[in-house]
Amino acid sequence: MENTVYNFSAGPAMLPVDVMQQAQAEFCNFNNLGVSVMELSHRSQDFISVATQAEQDLRDLMHIPDNYKVLFLQGGGRGQFAALALNLMGKNAKADYIVTGQWSKSAIAEAEKVGQVRALDGFVKAENEQGPRALATEWDLDPNAAFVHYCINETVDGIEYPFIPETGDVPLVADMSSTILSRPVDVTKFGLIYAGAQKNIGPSGLAVVIVRDDLLDQAFPNTPAIMDYAALAKADSMLNTPPTYAWYLAGLVFKWLKRQGGLTVMGERNKAKADLLYNYVDASDFYSNSVHPEARSWMNIPFQLKDDSLNEAFLAQAKAAGLVALKGHRLVGGMRASVYNAMPIEGVQALVDFMDKFAKQQG
Amino acid sequence: MENTVYNFSAGPAMLPVDVMQQAQAEFCNFNNLGVSVMELSHRSQDFISVATQAEQDLRDLMHIPDNYKVLFLQGGGRGQFAALALNLMGKNAKADYIVTGQWSKSAIAEAEKVGQVRALDGFVKAENEQGPRALATEWDLDPNAAFVHYCINETVDGIEYPFIPETGDVPLVADMSSTILSRPVDVTKFGLIYAGAQKNIGPSGLAVVIVRDDLLDQAFPNTPAIMDYAALAKADSMLNTPPTYAWYLAGLVFKWLKRQGGLTVMGERNKAKADLLYNYVDASDFYSNSVHPEARSWMNIPFQLKDDSLNEAFLAQAKAAGLVALKGHRLVGGMRASVYNAMPIEGVQALVDFMDKFAKQQG
Ligand SMILES: Cc1ncc(COP(=O)(O)O)c(C=O)c1O
Ligand SMILES: Cc1ncc(COP(=O)(O)O)c(C=O)c1O
Repeated sequence: MENTVYNFSAGPAMLPVDVMQQAQAEFCNFNNLGVSVMELSHRSQDFISVATQAEQDLRDLMHIPDNYKVLFLQGGGRGQFAALALNLMGKNAKADYIVTGQWSKSAIAEAEKVGQVRALDGFVKAENEQGPRALATEWDLDPNAAFVHYCINETVDGIEYPFIPETGDVPLVADMSSTILSRPVDVTKFGLIYAGAQKNIGPSGLAVVIVRDDLLDQAFPNTPAIMDYAALAKADSMLNTPPTYAWYLAGLVFKWLKRQGGLTVMGERNKAKADLLYNYVDASDFYSNSVHPEARSWMNIPFQLKDDSLNEAFLAQAKAAGLVALKGHRLVGGMRASVYNAMPIEGVQALVDFMDKFAKQQG
Repeated sequence: MENTVYNFSAGPAMLPVDVMQQAQAEFCNFNNLGVSVMELSHRSQDFISVATQAEQDLRDLMHIPDNYKVLFLQGGGRGQFAALALNLMGKNAKADYIVTGQWSKSAIAEAEKVGQVRALDGFVKAENEQGPRALATEWDLDPNAAFVHYCINETVDGIEYPFIPETGDVPLVADMSSTILSRPVDVTKFGLIYAGAQKNIGPSGLAVVIVRDDLLDQAFPNTPAIMDYAALAKADSMLNTPPTYAWYLAGLVFKWLKRQGGLTVMGERNKAKADLLYNYVDASDFYSNSVHPEARSWMNIPFQLKDDSLNEAFLAQAKAAGLVALKGHRLVGGMRASVYNAMPIEGVQALVDFMDKFAKQQG
């Protein structure tokens, strides 16, 4: 490859170029040990150093207080859909789920296997039938629910919360898969945060869970060990063999984020990237985005072409220009540009330039 | 590193040098796509080709018949301890577990959360109190059990079955984590085979499950989606984002095994490696192995020094000689040499040479 490729995949997604180059350089010989980091026993001191450093760097980046455990697990986001319900509903098997799109809906399917779930509409009524719907700020919450669950950023729909829901004494549980580390967030507002790694953390095969200590005593007794947060916390996420290589790569990403200046800097960059693309789309007659302006995602930006029959030509020409993985999710159609931390603004500019050229060419 | 390092880790374990070098070379630019294989969407045609080729190569190597599904999952071996019980005990919640060591015991802990488990002694009575115990060939099996579970190779204890237990009509379930692909095996004798990848398949974070079709209709209805074999099979293991990079590396290992000549050749090589080490240990007054000769593992070879107080010196000098990760499991003590497919016979010879030098030096 001679030319730069910009990869807009929603996940597994691109990783920072610096991270990939470092990982490649030390792929077969980590720390001069003569073996790969993926060939180390997870019980070796060499790997434990990698693991604890990664956790510390994540704690630093997100300002995670000491009364929260940080877990590095297998099972992906969907694994946590099940695990969080098994862990938090043991004492009181009911929970409220705010629904804003595909992923909050999918989370319910797993929780319903475990307890009683109420699905709450995440939107207020639109002013007119066609117009975009704004996010609700109040819901008919059950004060006796074990927790309230929501998805901060709906990866498929491109809908992101610009605020943290107020749930009183009921612990708030957040699916942060596609927005974690993209800007500062107040961890103390949450009972539990989880994220599949394959968007903003590292490769697929790893999920990160951040959970407040006092929520760790309410699991169902027959929870599978690999989903039992209390047991996993006690074993420093090494109750069984963890996905060591993914954990190591996540650590490299955390170090890279620190070098960039941390989450405040990333937030500014991500806002600039999102503004660039949304402003172009809004000014255009050829492209459109139908999400309410206040609920637009900084990470996943869906857009539609004026004429769906041009989608294939758009994708083919974009690919030829080095702009790949722009096809929208099958449930939404159109296009989607995922612009996670690792995507430089140059990539978004290249996309906008291409979109403009394509629009003019099609008239 | 100038000198060759031989890595005897029990898992995560060494991978074939050729595989690591290929993976390093194409780390940032897979198939000239300009992105890493780990940056590809699992739904992209590029990744699906990787995934289906890996499955086909594994089918070829193990001669897996068409009426078996092959799954590539997260959760490790311990995840499958839970999953297999959830999947197979839905109709008849009882199972027989043959116990031969640490891992068959651990498997029971997860199954007991799901149904009724009988633990059956895997050994016959020893002829004298001190002598090694031979593997039983008959057990008091329950003809109405949902399945019989055993661990073909006890990674910690160094005990391996040289035969396949006869269980009549009751499906046989095998933990093959530390011996899969090390020699030919008749898949048709099993209802379900599973293995954590981190010994003989690839890096950690991946488990492979091979399951007979007719066993896929008996899961408990509330089985978590990421453990639901029938749903996973229907989705070609892409019910959620799979561990794509580990899957890709497993595929490279399968191709490497084919280039070596397949499992018959590997079996011959592995027997030669094991013979070399056991013969040396048996002839020595300084080292010993206490496993019954007919139950000795080809993959994990524990041995004790005459005097435990020499263990630290042995490990330090071995490491200095490029022989790493020889410390035995904490439950067994002493040493353990794991000599999976990727370990060349030169590594075993280097170990024997070092052991001999050390023994002579200590007198
Ligand atoms: C917001 C969100 N939650 C959950 C998931 C599910 O993650 P996984 O595929 O790892 O199960 C995704 C996956 O894309 C996601 O975007
Ligand atoms: C035979 C056997 N079964 C199961 C396991 C558990 O695997 P995991 O650590 O992936 O859960 C191991 C791990 O070493 C093993 O050797």
